[in-house]
Amino acid sequence: MEVHVKQNRSAREPQDNRARMLISCPDGPGIVAAVSQFLYEHGANIVQSDQYTMDPDGGMFFMRVEFDLPQLADNLESLQQSFEQIAGRFQMKWTINQVSRKKRLAIFVSKEDHCLVELLWHWQAGDLDAEIAMVVSNHNDMRSYVESFGIPFHHIPVTADTKQEAERRQLEVIGSDIDVIVLARYMQIISPSFIEHYRNRIINIHHSFLPAFVGGKPYAQAYNRGVKIIGATAHYVTEELDGGPIIEQDVQRVSHSDNVNELKRIGRTIERVVLARAVQWHVEDRILVHQNKTVVFN
Amino acid sequence: MEVHVKQNRSAREPQDNRARMLISCPDGPGIVAAVSQFLYEHGANIVQSDQYTMDPDGGMFFMRVEFDLPQLADNLESLQQSFEQIAGRFQMKWTINQVSRKKRLAIFVSKEDHCLVELLWHWQAGDLDAEIAMVVSNHNDMRSYVESFGIPFHHIPVTADTKQEAERRQLEVIGSDIDVIVLARYMQIISPSFIEHYRNRIINIHHSFLPAFVGGKPYAQAYNRGVKIIGATAHYVTEELDGGPIIEQDVQRVSHSDNVNELKRIGRTIERVVLARAVQWHVEDRILVHQNKTVVFN
Amino acid sequence: MEVHVKQNRSAREPQDNRARMLISCPDGPGIVAAVSQFLYEHGANIVQSDQYTMDPDGGMFFMRVEFDLPQLADNLESLQQSFEQIAGRFQMKWTINQVSRKKRLAIFVSKEDHCLVELLWHWQAGDLDAEIAMVVSNHNDMRSYVESFGIPFHHIPVTADTKQEAERRQLEVIGSDIDVIVLARYMQIISPSFIEHYRNRIINIHHSFLPAFVGGKPYAQAYNRGVKIIGATAHYVTEELDGGPIIEQDVQRVSHSDNVNELKRIGRTIERVVLARAVQWHVEDRILVHQNKTVVFN
Amino acid sequence: MEVHVKQNRSAREPQDNRARMLISCPDGPGIVAAVSQFLYEHGANIVQSDQYTMDPDGGMFFMRVEFDLPQLADNLESLQQSFEQIAGRFQMKWTINQVSRKKRLAIFVSKEDHCLVELLWHWQAGDLDAEIAMVVSNHNDMRSYVESFGIPFHHIPVTADTKQEAERRQLEVIGSDIDVIVLARYMQIISPSFIEHYRNRIINIHHSFLPAFVGGKPYAQAYNRGVKIIGATAHYVTEELDGGPIIEQDVQRVSHSDNVNELKRIGRTIERVVLARAVQWHVEDRILVHQNKTVVFN
Repeated sequence: MEVHVKQNRSAREPQDNRARMLISCPDGPGIVAAVSQFLYEHGANIVQSDQYTMDPDGGMFFMRVEFDLPQLADNLESLQQSFEQIAGRFQMKWTINQVSRKKRLAIFVSKEDHCLVELLWHWQAGDLDAEIAMVVSNHNDMRSYVESFGIPFHHIPVTADTKQEAERRQLEVIGSDIDVIVLARYMQIISPSFIEHYRNRIINIHHSFLPAFVGGKPYAQAYNRGVKIIGATAHYVTEELDGGPIIEQDVQRVSHSDNVNELKRIGRTIERVVLARAVQWHVEDRILVHQNKTVVFN
Repeated sequence: MEVHVKQNRSAREPQDNRARMLISCPDGPGIVAAVSQFLYEHGANIVQSDQYTMDPDGGMFFMRVEFDLPQLADNLESLQQSFEQIAGRFQMKWTINQVSRKKRLAIFVSKEDHCLVELLWHWQAGDLDAEIAMVVSNHNDMRSYVESFGIPFHHIPVTADTKQEAERRQLEVIGSDIDVIVLARYMQIISPSFIEHYRNRIINIHHSFLPAFVGGKPYAQAYNRGVKIIGATAHYVTEELDGGPIIEQDVQRVSHSDNVNELKRIGRTIERVVLARAVQWHVEDRILVHQNKTVVFN
Repeated sequence: MEVHVKQNRSAREPQDNRARMLISCPDGPGIVAAVSQFLYEHGANIVQSDQYTMDPDGGMFFMRVEFDLPQLADNLESLQQSFEQIAGRFQMKWTINQVSRKKRLAIFVSKEDHCLVELLWHWQAGDLDAEIAMVVSNHNDMRSYVESFGIPFHHIPVTADTKQEAERRQLEVIGSDIDVIVLARYMQIISPSFIEHYRNRIINIHHSFLPAFVGGKPYAQAYNRGVKIIGATAHYVTEELDGGPIIEQDVQRVSHSDNVNELKRIGRTIERVVLARAVQWHVEDRILVHQNKTVVFN
Repeated sequence: MEVHVKQNRSAREPQDNRARMLISCPDGPGIVAAVSQFLYEHGANIVQSDQYTMDPDGGMFFMRVEFDLPQLADNLESLQQSFEQIAGRFQMKWTINQVSRKKRLAIFVSKEDHCLVELLWHWQAGDLDAEIAMVVSNHNDMRSYVESFGIPFHHIPVTADTKQEAERRQLEVIGSDIDVIVLARYMQIISPSFIEHYRNRIINIHHSFLPAFVGGKPYAQAYNRGVKIIGATAHYVTEELDGGPIIEQDVQRVSHSDNVNELKRIGRTIERVVLARAVQWHVEDRILVHQNKTVVFN
């Protein structure tokens, strides 16, 4: 099993001195100047920079800066402290993340494995620059598969009666240093209090149709109305079921001759591709959330 | 204005002897054999044939046959009479249309012209093999544009009070020989009694989103939730608003940086492309409707 | 490892009595009638039927019929013998395959695993209705991964000097009952004599660009010209390198900000999706080849 | 004809004080800081800003800034003069354009009208924020159509013998204040000396296939190899035929049942959509060219 247990093989060069800065604040004159001047004065070299203003007249301003700073590890803390002054002046919400400090993922899964397999393949191929810290499931089916990659697997059954206790145990195994939770076809509703712990850090994937179908058996409904396109939506989880900020979507054409099983099969491939993109963008600090909307700098 | 008033310039060869047959019936053994044997014995040569069975166990069967028959014009009526026996045996709903007899369209439009312009361009380029018999509008804005193509234009205003009378006048100008009505962004709801006259012969286009947004201002809602894909759906009009059988759909990617106006602009291009495809498939007898679903042989 | 070694779990119902017929012949009157009449008289029920005539005036005719026949296993041989007469009359090339007799695949792979992983996932998910009889590689890297699925793995090194001998050994391990060979990023050129053994039964995948780039380092060339779309093409292998009949293609949008590594990463996902579709269509007898072109009834 | 001759109806608010700045220069520390600080100090408010560095180690740097400056018309010249110092320091190629000063287009066309019709529709709908100053054609067919929009039409025939003289006359009618030339299916090769006058300001559209086909009759070649996807590429014209920097590309799926005429018809719709996007991005100053590659900030 040596192929499986080895760590992911990144083709990327070491980026020990690279960092990413994310900023949201009310728009106003001088923000870009202040941030770029600050970085310049501290010896940082901007590698990539994206800005977006939602509405030029009094809207929100969003910025992502990728920069290199010599001896980043030693200097990051003082850089962050110095930045407090600018952040305060413009009422910024902001983060600076070291690229070399990989984000830690917990993947939640139930019985369908297609999204899990996709994420593990991307991870193993070096295309998902993150650490998969654990897989949590309400079923035991995936244990040996997950463990063959050397990844811890936690089986936490969930029933209507034990839901609260199950979430308590989930939070326990997750601990305090998981950056993002990926619901890779995890078929349980997450409680508001759990969501509150991981606001804009839980990513879910669900099928989507053009136009939409409300209620149960959406693939059967889609088949019955003869849709020509099916899709999937990756989004952050909020208290409104499947109603959180959209990160990514994609579609594929289908025809009358695709039966419900074939629609589901096609849907699985869209789901795993869309979820993998959304997770990648999250771990690369490409997503900012404002109200119920994402700004994705990709 | 000689460019405008000349008829559409078809690049197609004359197909005087070509016909298209559409069949829907309960599935059962021997249907394809009976139909193809019938055509063979009557001297017809099958050019293209498509079949589809919705459910092998007792579902519906759909068939489209394109065939050449020498002296079609003289022989069509007797061919149709002879076919009655087979049709009766298998409880078929069926039609046989001469390709050279172009379908007659009435286009309904309000103030937005993008779908109308697209249809006229396809028609003029010889890509829409139909006769545009008239344009009907509740506004007078498009009159000179439409008339420059030599197409009759009927202005029939509609208000809440005059709706019933307006529909009566619409039916009057349409007369008895229009094959299909295209709602090219016609912003009035069609009454059930009008729909009944043109069951599965009124084509509408509307914007669609992934996932869907219920209620008013859908583009604003889509913008507020940061959708990454917008689309359009062409469908036959039924009593359920925007709920009829889907003919065609398509989408385009958008991003957070597209504002509501830009989403609408992109939406217009998807709408006109999707509507043009749906109309083309209808006039080429490629669409069969069963319950709330289309079978499109394209 | 129980997840891995278990066979693929098909969600499909048993289709013991279902068969698929593929026909190519010069077009002429009466073919559909003769075939469908033949099947009807032998007690077969046509489930799906597709025809296509390349050129109504003297072109080729292609047909795919899916049918159910009671006691198929017992009756297939006599059905085939009876069909010889019709086949002779119309100069048909034809096959009838039992759906329950799964096609046997040999997958060839070098060092890149993305296409192999995709095929194994589809197979394990029950979406690839075939038997993966073996994996053959010129490297040993994938052995433990492949064997964890219970699939035999053959390591046959290839060098410029040993190429002929290597192909001899490949043919030996393949034996006489492999239906199709899938080159899942197998980075060796196949010799004409090998191709001759498996005419239209070797499927390859390669990257494709819009427009095209001739010569080495295509991703670097594509990057240097700033392509906005990259794609992949699955095709049957012929003596002309990457020039055989195209089975399937797909694309994804990219932008100036995707560097060569990112283009390659995106390319890998397109390659595996496109190859998986092509293999599925092949094993479902959906592809007919005429000269350098496929007819795909999907 | 009042619909036609009226100017395009822009839904946009007046943007009298908005400008767009485009910068290309070798990358180095402090560029973003210097530019944004400069704009801030001159009272400009950055509305949108995009940067891209081709290669963090010594590559090129590209920047687009959209900003509002009070009394822009009065202040633009002094702003530009002041900027010279920064531009010199970083060896910048740069422009600042007033948004309210619409770019002037000359459209070249031959006999196929689909791209011309598309551009005129976008222009009339207010979606193409430019002035269409003239249409130049080597044929007279489009005269009345173009003139019905109130746009001057110049018929300049071209033959092998008169090519040089024809280009001289074209340059004459174009005059000195055309910003961009759009080849809307203009079927003549442009000479190097003409190209030199309008370096990176002549936009062409041509069909593209996956993979590519060299030589004549590309649609026939594509049909013969059974391509599953056809596309179009909009690019700047260089001395290498169809080899200039790509601005935009798009594709559509086709199948074996689409004959050469249908491929061409589908191709026309892709061409006009792709060309319209490319022209729009050009007139909105979204495109920077470096060597044979574009950076498109859209």
